[in-house]
Amino acid sequence: MKKIKLSQRQEGIIKLVKEHEPITSEHLASKLNVTRAALRPDLAILTMTGILEAKPKVGYTYSKKPSYSLIYDYIRNIKVKDIMSQPVVVNEATTVYDAIVNLFLNDVGTLFVENNGILVGAISRKDFLKFAMGGTDMHKVPVGIIMTRMPNIVVVNEEEDAYEAAIKIIEHEIDSLPVVIKATDNDKKDAFKIIGKVSKTNITKLLVKMGERS
Amino acid sequence: MKKIKLSQRQEGIIKLVKEHEPITSEHLASKLNVTRAALRPDLAILTMTGILEAKPKVGYTYSKKPSYSLIYDYIRNIKVKDIMSQPVVVNEATTVYDAIVNLFLNDVGTLFVENNGILVGAISRKDFLKFAMGGTDMHKVPVGIIMTRMPNIVVVNEEEDAYEAAIKIIEHEIDSLPVVIKATDNDKKDAFKIIGKVSKTNITKLLVKMGERS
Repeated sequence: MKKIKLSQRQEGIIKLVKEHEPITSEHLASKLNVTRAALRPDLAILTMTGILEAKPKVGYTYSKKPSYSLIYDYIRNIKVKDIMSQPVVVNEATTVYDAIVNLFLNDVGTLFVENNGILVGAISRKDFLKFAMGGTDMHKVPVGIIMTRMPNIVVVNEEEDAYEAAIKIIEHEIDSLPVVIKATDNDKKDAFKIIGKVSKTNITKLLVKMGERS
Repeated sequence: MKKIKLSQRQEGIIKLVKEHEPITSEHLASKLNVTRAALRPDLAILTMTGILEAKPKVGYTYSKKPSYSLIYDYIRNIKVKDIMSQPVVVNEATTVYDAIVNLFLNDVGTLFVENNGILVGAISRKDFLKFAMGGTDMHKVPVGIIMTRMPNIVVVNEEEDAYEAAIKIIEHEIDSLPVVIKATDNDKKDAFKIIGKVSKTNITKLLVKMGERS
């Protein structure tokens, strides 16, 4: 990421505003021993970037928040393919017991289910737990019976914005989305191959990455 | 959040740079029918904000990313109390069965466990599922037996940065953190009362909020 260094004077202005807000440009100029005219370009940059807020007849305050359009632009330029991770996939005929073992071995929250290379379903810890509550023998039931089945699964493609994936996760109250591509060798409209996943963990990692001083 | 509006000319510059990058200031000036000197303040602001990158002898490119320090400042100014939600709490003597029912009724991923108002443990879908795999009777075992017990629980306080909470979630590979305050009526060092929780869902919602055009 591009690093921007504020000038020493700009840093000084921010410090003064934090200490004395609201503070007028006259006061700032006298504290810094410069003319108001000399400050004007710095103040323009600091308000443009959203670091300072200028209130008419009141003075400058520290806004703590950058220009919304910058954050927006930044978030909207990250794609699903930039943050997705490897999905754990099992076959539709796998028993519930073996699938849960798989879930633990890979330490994931959701398994995706395929049949002949086509995504047919998804199953989460919550689904497994609900099944376990019922007391049915886990060794005798295949995951195909208890999974959420296509087309009732929300999917994303790798060129979508990571932001859109986050919205889908929140709106549909799910933990993990399969990242898919159209299966070209299959005539069905909703025939997808799974190539990745985006979970709340990926989104949380993205936020951590955004806040890193690098 | 403060809204910054770029001037029409600045928007025009960004558009030209996107189309022709890398593009020199001479070319920009001639396309806009102005002098290079007239463009200088706009280009200064656009590079300061990190919208454009200026490469010597190459020209301006569109960086897509705002100044890292702005994103950093923004993320670091959001506190745990700004994003936390209500925790679901059960007593240590609750049976595993009743606890799981509670988990489903409230649609949460983690239950917190208290005893006399003090946080004593936490238990997740994963813990419950592991227990269910064992085949022991869910009606006969209290959650106190299978929960993760204090002090082996990572906690946050409401004045901590939301960003620090996100880091704890990723580093300790957990879904949800209890937000706690010191229990003043208790002598034990690690005696906390639970007042909220921060989960990957809260972090994902935060990212969605950050990207909103509002």
